[in-house]
Amino acid sequence: MRQHHMHKPDHSHKEKIDYAKMAITLDHNFSMAEFVGPENGLQEKDLENLTPRLEEIDQQIKTWRQEGTIGFFDLPYQEETAKKINKLAKKLKEWCWDLLVLGIGGSALGAKALHQALCHPSHNLFPPARRSYHSRLFVADNIDPDYLYGILDAVELRRTVVNVISKSGSTAETIAQFLFVYSLLKGRLGADKVRDRIVLTTDPEKGMLRHLVQNEGFPSLSVPPNVGGRFSVLAAVGLFPAAMVGVDIEELLEGARFMDQRLRSASISQNLAYRLAACYYLFLSQKARPIQVIMPYAAGLTGIADWFCQLWGESLGKKYALDGSIVHVGPTPVRAVGVTDQHSQLQLYMEGPPDKIITFLEVDKFQHTLAIPRLYPEMEGMHYLGGHSFAELLQAEKKATAFNLIKAGRPNLTLHLPEINPFTLGQLIYLFEVTVVVLGRLLNINPFDQPGVEGGKQTTYGLMGRQGFESQRQEVENAPPVLDKYVL
Amino acid sequence: MRQHHMHKPDHSHKEKIDYAKMAITLDHNFSMAEFVGPENGLQEKDLENLTPRLEEIDQQIKTWRQEGTIGFFDLPYQEETAKKINKLAKKLKEWCWDLLVLGIGGSALGAKALHQALCHPSHNLFPPARRSYHSRLFVADNIDPDYLYGILDAVELRRTVVNVISKSGSTAETIAQFLFVYSLLKGRLGADKVRDRIVLTTDPEKGMLRHLVQNEGFPSLSVPPNVGGRFSVLAAVGLFPAAMVGVDIEELLEGARFMDQRLRSASISQNLAYRLAACYYLFLSQKARPIQVIMPYAAGLTGIADWFCQLWGESLGKKYALDGSIVHVGPTPVRAVGVTDQHSQLQLYMEGPPDKIITFLEVDKFQHTLAIPRLYPEMEGMHYLGGHSFAELLQAEKKATAFNLIKAGRPNLTLHLPEINPFTLGQLIYLFEVTVVVLGRLLNINPFDQPGVEGGKQTTYGLMGRQGFESQRQEVENAPPVLDKYVL
Repeated sequence: MRQHHMHKPDHSHKEKIDYAKMAITLDHNFSMAEFVGPENGLQEKDLENLTPRLEEIDQQIKTWRQEGTIGFFDLPYQEETAKKINKLAKKLKEWCWDLLVLGIGGSALGAKALHQALCHPSHNLFPPARRSYHSRLFVADNIDPDYLYGILDAVELRRTVVNVISKSGSTAETIAQFLFVYSLLKGRLGADKVRDRIVLTTDPEKGMLRHLVQNEGFPSLSVPPNVGGRFSVLAAVGLFPAAMVGVDIEELLEGARFMDQRLRSASISQNLAYRLAACYYLFLSQKARPIQVIMPYAAGLTGIADWFCQLWGESLGKKYALDGSIVHVGPTPVRAVGVTDQHSQLQLYMEGPPDKIITFLEVDKFQHTLAIPRLYPEMEGMHYLGGHSFAELLQAEKKATAFNLIKAGRPNLTLHLPEINPFTLGQLIYLFEVTVVVLGRLLNINPFDQPGVEGGKQTTYGLMGRQGFESQRQEVENAPPVLDKYVL
Repeated sequence: MRQHHMHKPDHSHKEKIDYAKMAITLDHNFSMAEFVGPENGLQEKDLENLTPRLEEIDQQIKTWRQEGTIGFFDLPYQEETAKKINKLAKKLKEWCWDLLVLGIGGSALGAKALHQALCHPSHNLFPPARRSYHSRLFVADNIDPDYLYGILDAVELRRTVVNVISKSGSTAETIAQFLFVYSLLKGRLGADKVRDRIVLTTDPEKGMLRHLVQNEGFPSLSVPPNVGGRFSVLAAVGLFPAAMVGVDIEELLEGARFMDQRLRSASISQNLAYRLAACYYLFLSQKARPIQVIMPYAAGLTGIADWFCQLWGESLGKKYALDGSIVHVGPTPVRAVGVTDQHSQLQLYMEGPPDKIITFLEVDKFQHTLAIPRLYPEMEGMHYLGGHSFAELLQAEKKATAFNLIKAGRPNLTLHLPEINPFTLGQLIYLFEVTVVVLGRLLNINPFDQPGVEGGKQTTYGLMGRQGFESQRQEVENAPPVLDKYVL
């Protein structure tokens, strides 16, 4: 299955892909007044009215790119990095069966998404030969001790590469995991053997993990300093784990480049990212729809939806506008999966408050179609399915869902992926990254910071007894006591 | 790890559990005005003012129970069913390695949640002996052909039991899967051997699956007709898969009974479910907070959060009030996981719009603590972690998160589980089921139906060519065409 992802990068097949046929398309008809009525839907003129704002933002993006302040725009062009990573991965896979990623948030979600979308659904359950000797992937993105213990129970420690990922080099969860796993491996393998097995992905110059690279000689990969964690999936953060599980990362970057070229060559009004951001912005600002559901009709894209939720939540949920005024903005991203969540969340989306806009991800062609057999002609409720395929049923259900949503005045839009492959994933990832930046600027906030989580980190330092954070500990200890009447 | 779940039900250990010490508690201090201010928090008097409404609802529940109209209240007392299921599971596990559940929505989420919470985190990766010969679990809750193919690629078909779950017996996705898997198995094993391996869980008398049981002799389990799909995890729907993977289902029911007794013996004002529902209701009706985040600080409870999202979304997202007026109500449930989503969604929760109420699930004692080693004394940013445990770090982070949320005026509440075990899970499940019913009645809607998804099902029938649904197909075909200008 999915042979062209499962095997090692094979440059010969690249010629065969017709990239133009692999372009993602956006169909936002069902978000428009023509289909859901003027109260619920957008007007073409509202989109047009945003053109001046989008021109300013377009200019801002050009300036950022010239100045090199925002690094993710350049990642698609890091072909040398991809080559270097492939080389490292190839060498490690001579003996490595399992890759254990220690990372959280932007250091975890991209790798998980790529693994899920581009490897066999049962990749981690297969023996090495059936994975073409690509590694299994375990991402320890929580510090729950039972969970961490459970993962360590499953990996083949003597055949495991540990990839510690923290851009800052100081993420408490990741550092704690590193200390634990490093000690564990040292005990099992001896100090001299351990070092080659722990790859540190971090800032090229700063931070504690880089310090360890410099002082103790751990192998390392770099995250460019101007690339934020949640924009780093196309840097070593996402590429190295992807290469280890057998994803064609050069093709992934090819897809991102394809999208970049497409966005840069389009006029403002025909720019896919700008149109998408404009739709989302209008639903927030004019239609009071603060919830953005991302709903792939493909089980393999669940991880991409989780990655999207981080990109959206952390980039757009902000207290302050760029001018310092207090705004408290940001859509709430919600992950759903078709057809599964038709039997869970769709009732709410159909009948609940009109506070949502739904983005479907639709896959036009799966690797398999799977014919449904014709059985039980005496039971009409079974027999009608026979002769169709699962792919047909899935597409019919997506169509039926979108159609019934607009009948109820519920706007939705669809991004079409011709297939799920590294090239289309590269496009999709890059598209969402540009879109969130544009949407952030339309909302007049800084999409690149995350000041709201700093307080919690400092309180944790205080509670854990870290020097210099005594006042934070004090603050918690001095807080008014909880009242028994509110405890049951 | 988690030995008392991993092994076969062992009645001797039950004496050892002190049930009173295993009681779930609710701490909703941080949802109150005393902690988040009068604008954001609830007043004690508002809770008190709900007492007359809650008394009515209490009466309604008593009536339902007497009349036997709402079946989930009785499930904790189906000890005979649990015994029968354990007997069947024991017999099947003599040869079965893998259980494949074909089901979706309420027929999938409960089993997935129990498997994730109560089995070893790497259960499905272990060979049979390391699972104490309990089955692996695969839940095919989507019709994505690549996903279905991928699962079938992983199971040991000759050692697989298939559990087809559909209360109505006519769920299109599940029927299609049944037809496919039945044909596949028949081809591999021969018609006579297949039948014992396909257990149909459905209505005791009606529907197509029951028809097959009666006419072709498939083994079967029953879902009581008065138990809705999303309330059926404590019926055979959830219990049989749980038993197959080694969960102590009698203990699960014991926990549900414990909660039921507790709720029934409490006064209205001290009733855990009523208090919880009252808090949620006030945040919806008085505080305009339509988003309810469920955020377990335990990786193993992720599936419970998904199960919660279905229970909430489908029960509460309604167009019509009980008197027939149009209301379009229903909170939007959102799943987050601590600490993971501190690095994804917390920024939004801290700084975004004040439209959320967060429910933490906190586990007081994990199976493991995992000490963080003291290393690198020269680096203070690493060294402070040494000597603490992962369990401590997790709890500090939860405390820090809740504390910083209230500092920002963001209400939250916490359900404490003393441990994760079948007894506490049974309590939690039953508590949420009662709570959603009470919340539904406070919202003045019917929490037991899901009329909003009917249209989509009928459109799908039409598109798939089912007899009697020609007009639905026609409706889609006659719809106005999409406009090219909205496709990019």
